[in-house]
Amino acid sequence: MPLDDLQRQDLLDSSAAEVRAAIRAGRWRGTTHDMARGYIQANLAILPEAHALDFMRFCHRNPKPCPLLDVTDTGNPEARQVAPGSDLRTDLARYCLYRDGRFVEELTDLRAHWRPDHVGFVMGCSLSFDTAMEAEGIPARSFRRGSRIPTFTSTIECVPAGPFRGPMVVSLKPIPPRWAEQVQAVTARYPGAHGGPVHVGDPAAIGVDPSRPDWTTACTIGDDEVPMFWGCGVTPQSVAMAAGIPEMITHCVGHMFITDLRLADLRRA
Amino acid sequence: MPLDDLQRQDLLDSSAAEVRAAIRAGRWRGTTHDMARGYIQANLAILPEAHALDFMRFCHRNPKPCPLLDVTDTGNPEARQVAPGSDLRTDLARYCLYRDGRFVEELTDLRAHWRPDHVGFVMGCSLSFDTAMEAEGIPARSFRRGSRIPTFTSTIECVPAGPFRGPMVVSLKPIPPRWAEQVQAVTARYPGAHGGPVHVGDPAAIGVDPSRPDWTTACTIGDDEVPMFWGCGVTPQSVAMAAGIPEMITHCVGHMFITDLRLADLRRA
Repeated sequence: MPLDDLQRQDLLDSSAAEVRAAIRAGRWRGTTHDMARGYIQANLAILPEAHALDFMRFCHRNPKPCPLLDVTDTGNPEARQVAPGSDLRTDLARYCLYRDGRFVEELTDLRAHWRPDHVGFVMGCSLSFDTAMEAEGIPARSFRRGSRIPTFTSTIECVPAGPFRGPMVVSLKPIPPRWAEQVQAVTARYPGAHGGPVHVGDPAAIGVDPSRPDWTTACTIGDDEVPMFWGCGVTPQSVAMAAGIPEMITHCVGHMFITDLRLADLRRA
Repeated sequence: MPLDDLQRQDLLDSSAAEVRAAIRAGRWRGTTHDMARGYIQANLAILPEAHALDFMRFCHRNPKPCPLLDVTDTGNPEARQVAPGSDLRTDLARYCLYRDGRFVEELTDLRAHWRPDHVGFVMGCSLSFDTAMEAEGIPARSFRRGSRIPTFTSTIECVPAGPFRGPMVVSLKPIPPRWAEQVQAVTARYPGAHGGPVHVGDPAAIGVDPSRPDWTTACTIGDDEVPMFWGCGVTPQSVAMAAGIPEMITHCVGHMFITDLRLADLRRA
């Protein structure tokens, strides 16, 4: 096995804190898919405090694409509620830096970029989806379609907040009709992982052509399948970029922040 | 019937918008208990924008005492998410104005006090509790104890955010053991109305003496009853007062903001 695979193997069943420490020490720069199994992975957005209140209002008004798990104190890089002892400047493998709505560069360490007015937003992500399905007894074959989830810019408008406004990015999964109702019910129980679907049925009704992906990969829907759409964590980034705010730092695709939360912590009563 | 009772009678089965209009027109200055039945009533806190981000973080970190239903745009008195067309300056019957953590005066209209930097926070309140119990088939006699809910300052510390920190105010209801489990499960389904209990059992364990109320009325717990405690919406006010922030405006006790939300809107999947 190549070294990368050996390292990854080590981290699969490690705790969230152990994987964060490995990343912090520079021992892992790859994607986090499947790592620290059982722990909730999250999207990250870091914004200047001047835009933080509007961004937080945006998340509160659009909980399906932006399920807010934690917001740091201004200037403090610890995500204390979901990962005590964490450091958002060093605990993600790769960061994307945006200025004035444009991608500038990829970073592996934010210590030189972090400012006293920075606020970190930790948001649930759809990686928890598969885990939730398994935990609730829905067989993987009924929903899993490769590792890249097809995502699209829909015509569903987000509720605006200050400069943050625009269409919701959605993820698509074709579901066999016999599982459709249960998948809908199960996902609704996990609001911290985007909750229930935002649309079920005709993709065109929300402006989506499954063969033409806006963000990742295309998707084929079988005659015997129901297309289901969920709010996607790319939305807040997409909206913040469109707003052209002076600076924003996010995780890079697939290189998530691993929290200490377990699936059960996200499950509704 | 005295005029007040006649007016109240008219408003019991009115819509939320109708009751808000009656208050706005000065036709009602009394409490809102039982009015616009079926609609969700809410706590209000208005703060200067300089404190809004910290206050919003406080609510996010302490969702049981501070279930955030809506946050207005800065300077805009409309609670657009939960009551489109509403005006927080005129749609509550009585407001309390605090300065530097001290009560200053009661107001019936905020138009002369509202500023461009004001942000309104609308938070769920426990008035929805009775409605939820009824809707879920738990007989009123098993939980109702007069109209004033006993509330106490507990030793449970809230998660701090900026200047906002301090003990959680809790409400107490003695529940017959045969209903205890169901009451716990039902309230957990309504996070927007304080969710499930924060403590069940020995009041002393959270520093409460039921015979010595901190906020409202005392409470007797029968030998055959389980004391159950919920986060109380007085908490954010109590904490903001303790922080001594320069200015805060809230609803006055019992004079709530009536939203367009229905109980079903607060119910978890």
